[in-house]
Amino acid sequence: MQKKYLMTPGPTPVPAEVLLTQAAPMIHHRTPDFSAAFMEAIDGLKYVFQTEASDVLVFASSGTGAMESSIANCFCPGDSVIVCRNGKFGDRMKQIAEVYGLNVIDLAYPWTQVVDPADVATALEENPGVRGVIVTQSETSSGVLNDVEKIGAIVREHPDVVLIVDSITGIGAVECKTDEWGLDVVMTGSQKGLMLPPGLAAVTVSEKAWRAYERSTLPKFYFDWKKYKKNLEKQTTPFTPAVSLILGLNEALKMIREEGIENVIARHARLAEATRKGCEALGLKLFAPPEGRGNAVTPVWVPEGVDGKAIVKIMKDKYGVTIAGGQDEYAGKIFRVGHLGYFGEFDIITTLAALEMTLAELGYEFERGAGIRAAEAVFMGA
Amino acid sequence: MQKKYLMTPGPTPVPAEVLLTQAAPMIHHRTPDFSAAFMEAIDGLKYVFQTEASDVLVFASSGTGAMESSIANCFCPGDSVIVCRNGKFGDRMKQIAEVYGLNVIDLAYPWTQVVDPADVATALEENPGVRGVIVTQSETSSGVLNDVEKIGAIVREHPDVVLIVDSITGIGAVECKTDEWGLDVVMTGSQKGLMLPPGLAAVTVSEKAWRAYERSTLPKFYFDWKKYKKNLEKQTTPFTPAVSLILGLNEALKMIREEGIENVIARHARLAEATRKGCEALGLKLFAPPEGRGNAVTPVWVPEGVDGKAIVKIMKDKYGVTIAGGQDEYAGKIFRVGHLGYFGEFDIITTLAALEMTLAELGYEFERGAGIRAAEAVFMGA
Repeated sequence: MQKKYLMTPGPTPVPAEVLLTQAAPMIHHRTPDFSAAFMEAIDGLKYVFQTEASDVLVFASSGTGAMESSIANCFCPGDSVIVCRNGKFGDRMKQIAEVYGLNVIDLAYPWTQVVDPADVATALEENPGVRGVIVTQSETSSGVLNDVEKIGAIVREHPDVVLIVDSITGIGAVECKTDEWGLDVVMTGSQKGLMLPPGLAAVTVSEKAWRAYERSTLPKFYFDWKKYKKNLEKQTTPFTPAVSLILGLNEALKMIREEGIENVIARHARLAEATRKGCEALGLKLFAPPEGRGNAVTPVWVPEGVDGKAIVKIMKDKYGVTIAGGQDEYAGKIFRVGHLGYFGEFDIITTLAALEMTLAELGYEFERGAGIRAAEAVFMGA
Repeated sequence: MQKKYLMTPGPTPVPAEVLLTQAAPMIHHRTPDFSAAFMEAIDGLKYVFQTEASDVLVFASSGTGAMESSIANCFCPGDSVIVCRNGKFGDRMKQIAEVYGLNVIDLAYPWTQVVDPADVATALEENPGVRGVIVTQSETSSGVLNDVEKIGAIVREHPDVVLIVDSITGIGAVECKTDEWGLDVVMTGSQKGLMLPPGLAAVTVSEKAWRAYERSTLPKFYFDWKKYKKNLEKQTTPFTPAVSLILGLNEALKMIREEGIENVIARHARLAEATRKGCEALGLKLFAPPEGRGNAVTPVWVPEGVDGKAIVKIMKDKYGVTIAGGQDEYAGKIFRVGHLGYFGEFDIITTLAALEMTLAELGYEFERGAGIRAAEAVFMGA
């Protein structure tokens, strides 16, 4: 037997309380029992998204379904949108926008840089008639945190521009004040900060986003927001919901509420800080820049002379600790430690210890124990 | 405590073996462990769909996602398609086709009639250039079974026409020979004959359907078939799969294989026959016509003078037996007993007994016990 540790930025570990809910007998979705559970889930999601003004809609899909829904529901063919991208998921938003025939104004940055809100302001000035700004808050591929609060303040000045925020690995890990920051569409997926298995996605829709919807002519059916909104008013869903995941969601939301969303985010900040300090104490270099590091995942450069894929493989095979490698051009060049969702301090200690043993085996030179010591210092508030 | 019985055509009861699998710890989807489970699931689905020639693609979505995918992946704006419809889900296919700007040649029948294959042949002759024929094999709303074998033989003569079959409540309940009958796209959903919670959908894609794909210009991303096919070749999925449902699927597929697909279908035929005979013995009238009755669900006319909604309500509240009411214009006029998936003979006995007690309470006159007697006769092969 080898104990397993899932330290990836999604799917993330699921608490036993939530897993057991998945084993509950099936109930029908057109019943008062399900409606009550569903409305409880919507209410809990509003708490997590920190919104009262926006609607929250839930799909049976992965996060990409929610991404696609934001394009198909807000725009018309030929509409111009500003896509900010500094990672794989920003790239994906650009691809979806192009598939739907939008004119993409491409704000592309290296994966190691944050999006500069001033560039968004300039792009909006230079391109009158733009209908949307699209940004990834927490880039899973790079660990970069983009400042959606500042971008929100800029976009708010433009009554015809909706701000779409992919916060799939942000929600629950970093601060995301949907109403206060003026974010029109915010999305997340179940297998992230919500501590569920994959299969659910959720989006918030502001009044401004509903105005964009009314104008939109792009084809949509399964992801048609209005169908979800109309059914929400009847406490149900337009299509068969993923019943067991909705029931599990309530269990997870109960845990989040008990801890309090501010405390959940503070816990993520502490775990991320310990991971970063621990890695730096081993002489490793962090991938994301100091001015924008998220709490969901810590990407780390593979040190010179070490085989990056071997790090991931030994961690998994020898120690049972699954971390993620780099994506696209960074495959083999970085590794990524996830600490999003159901994570505590000793998960970070475990991962750093496995990393120390793995790096030692691969001939990398460093002071053994230094990583743990640095993480402990963070946890002790030193 | 009240024991609960879920007798609806979806979600359907989930075997405890499958439910427990949902409670397994989360694993990452980009791992050999998941790939092995995923390919086993694809292989099992091919067995259930009775196809070797077609690809089988799996989405995290409800069945409607698979329906939408068949439109978005096979056609171009303005394409003409023949939509056969005799129920709510045929109507839905027409709606989706219209949302995507197709020209719908509408073969509409009353919900109590089967689609006449001769009408399909005529429509194909009268409308050269048609690109698709769309038909619901097993209508959940009406219990009608359409003859997709005969329609397949007709469409096969037209090299540029794809045949799209919604078999969401057909697969596992009625015979559906994808390859042998020349069905280009066949779809199902997890919460039906596959005995899973809702959240997964699957489609088969024939070579002819892939040719349609190559021509298609409609926008798609999350449901883009090619992305799934490309990733299938690498034993994975383009977007995060619903991991726990895939693991549960293998458990369910193992049960289906052990019974044998022919026996599974024969069991459904027996349960449907017993339900029909039982209801008729109570003097009730069946909704679907004798020439086309599916095995997934038995819709029954509410007898004159009885409150249809009260039947469903008393069955559920007093006896714990959840059946379905009628949909759209048949709300309150029919009730529907599901027997699709994890069902055995005594589930039918239970339902008929609850129905007898309910009808008696509502003042309907009939010979008590006659329904059970008729069902027993079917089970005893009399």
